[in-house]
Amino acid sequence: MAEIDRKKKKELNAEDYIEGILNSDITVLSQAITLIESTHPKHAKIAREIVDGCLKKAGNSVRIGVTGVPGVGKSSFIETFGLHVIEKHNRKVAVLAIDPTSTYSKGSILGDKVRMERLSKHPQAFIRPSPSSGSLGGVARKTREVIYLCEAAGFDTIMIETVGVGQSEISVHTMVDFFLLLLLAGAGDSLQGIKRGIIEMADALAITKADGDNLPKAEKAKKEYQSAIKLFPPSESGWVPKVLVCSAVTGLGIPELWETIEEYCRLTKDNGYFYENRKKQAIYWMHETIKDRLERGFYEHPEVKKILNEVEDKVTKGQMSPFSAAEKLLEVYLGDGGGY
Amino acid sequence: MAEIDRKKKKELNAEDYIEGILNSDITVLSQAITLIESTHPKHAKIAREIVDGCLKKAGNSVRIGVTGVPGVGKSSFIETFGLHVIEKHNRKVAVLAIDPTSTYSKGSILGDKVRMERLSKHPQAFIRPSPSSGSLGGVARKTREVIYLCEAAGFDTIMIETVGVGQSEISVHTMVDFFLLLLLAGAGDSLQGIKRGIIEMADALAITKADGDNLPKAEKAKKEYQSAIKLFPPSESGWVPKVLVCSAVTGLGIPELWETIEEYCRLTKDNGYFYENRKKQAIYWMHETIKDRLERGFYEHPEVKKILNEVEDKVTKGQMSPFSAAEKLLEVYLGDGGGY
Repeated sequence: MAEIDRKKKKELNAEDYIEGILNSDITVLSQAITLIESTHPKHAKIAREIVDGCLKKAGNSVRIGVTGVPGVGKSSFIETFGLHVIEKHNRKVAVLAIDPTSTYSKGSILGDKVRMERLSKHPQAFIRPSPSSGSLGGVARKTREVIYLCEAAGFDTIMIETVGVGQSEISVHTMVDFFLLLLLAGAGDSLQGIKRGIIEMADALAITKADGDNLPKAEKAKKEYQSAIKLFPPSESGWVPKVLVCSAVTGLGIPELWETIEEYCRLTKDNGYFYENRKKQAIYWMHETIKDRLERGFYEHPEVKKILNEVEDKVTKGQMSPFSAAEKLLEVYLGDGGGY
Repeated sequence: MAEIDRKKKKELNAEDYIEGILNSDITVLSQAITLIESTHPKHAKIAREIVDGCLKKAGNSVRIGVTGVPGVGKSSFIETFGLHVIEKHNRKVAVLAIDPTSTYSKGSILGDKVRMERLSKHPQAFIRPSPSSGSLGGVARKTREVIYLCEAAGFDTIMIETVGVGQSEISVHTMVDFFLLLLLAGAGDSLQGIKRGIIEMADALAITKADGDNLPKAEKAKKEYQSAIKLFPPSESGWVPKVLVCSAVTGLGIPELWETIEEYCRLTKDNGYFYENRKKQAIYWMHETIKDRLERGFYEHPEVKKILNEVEDKVTKGQMSPFSAAEKLLEVYLGDGGGY
């Protein structure tokens, strides 16, 4: 393992980072992730070189998205599940997070690491909180790059946690192999704020906190969801979503969930969906990155910024059609000669 | 009503079109829609003027999205439903379609008009097939503009039919007040090809062909879906989705469905969601139009076109990260000086 002289860390070049990551040096991995998350232009080039250098060693993992509303017990679940697959299956687990509302400051040890104390101390685990700033698109793109780095460092089980409210689940769905939705028994209101459509996208639903007095309710919810998902459109993957109950306290359902994920991987690797989906996701992310950059160029244009609020206001008041408004803004951006 | 001299129709200016539309002249309305659907640059300016001129008289309608897989009986349903609301409620019904796979040629009388023969002949109905070409984004944007024109011409019930497979339902969901999903009894496989998430987005599910031997099956499916939707996240609108059975043959459920839509409008107008949602949709379409234009500029750039396939190929083979690939294409587009 490469020894890092902390005083010299600022002098590492891309080769050094790549070598450190491929040697599973967690300190180097963390520093490289910091470069990727940096918004400073001078870090962009080296970040890109590191990602490219890790690419050929990346991919050998299962990428699992985990979502659910606040209060569903995501952190406890991830800790118990992570320790299970490390201890029983000798996996190496990286936990990443996408939370565009995150206020974790750089280098803070608060947040996920505290909430998953046992897992975070395990030598076969790596926990990285969400980058603290930027648009969802930007945060998600960086997480996507970090996946490659973690895989190149030898992590074979990547868990990506989302905040469970808004758009982040949709985004995580485009970067994982398996999408897990955590639910509480006593549905309906307990899903307040969750994006409609998410239940149908899940590869597995796990009813959490299935312990003590709560167990019968959880079992009942499981049956209800099992009936419901039979009515859903069939998945392109050929996989029929599963419903489980689980408890981070007793460990109930945790081994079955890992078996479910293994079964999913076997099926979709046999029928080719696993690989096709990863290719589609890579192409999708290429186009998303392009869109993001084009839009940033547009919305950060000083003339556009100057009139955007006024134009939006006219659209909401019905004084201007959305299409005339778009034309107006595009004219400002492209110059008058840029018309249709 | 403005009399149109067919020989002079090419000489109509924007004012003439607007006047004709506001006078409910169907011939002028059709011609204006043709201008909007035109891809010829010389029609863009007048099309924009017409839409803007109609805007202040637009909006006084209920916009209903209707989707379902091929074979679910969309055309029969729309015909029966459309005639019901015309005859019993004196509504004026416009039926538009979003089908990016459509191969209707311009001016063809085939398609929807034949499949909805009785409705298409009714003086209070207007049926316009999907534009025959273009990306889903382009087709959908034009449909969005056509809604304004139909409303300005006095149509107070706008039905937008989608092909029910792929992305068009997602798109229609962003332009309607009420989203109706038609389903067949005997679920699961009958939903083949439908986008996951659609069931959760619907404001009502209608089990079609609920007649004869099929009626008990449809009633059973209704109960199953009623149980399932209780498990869905609550809707932002405050509306609890309804499940109905209906038959285009016997008329079963058709009055109840219209009552459901009226009830939805009352609720969401009372709580303000109806108006807020329309404002959000207008802003969404402004931004979509901008994105569409920026992306078109990028993907039609000759240098981008030249290398796009090769770059995509490297991404799918894992030889290049999606982010380096995006950078490479952006460099070509922006010129080397355009870096981060």
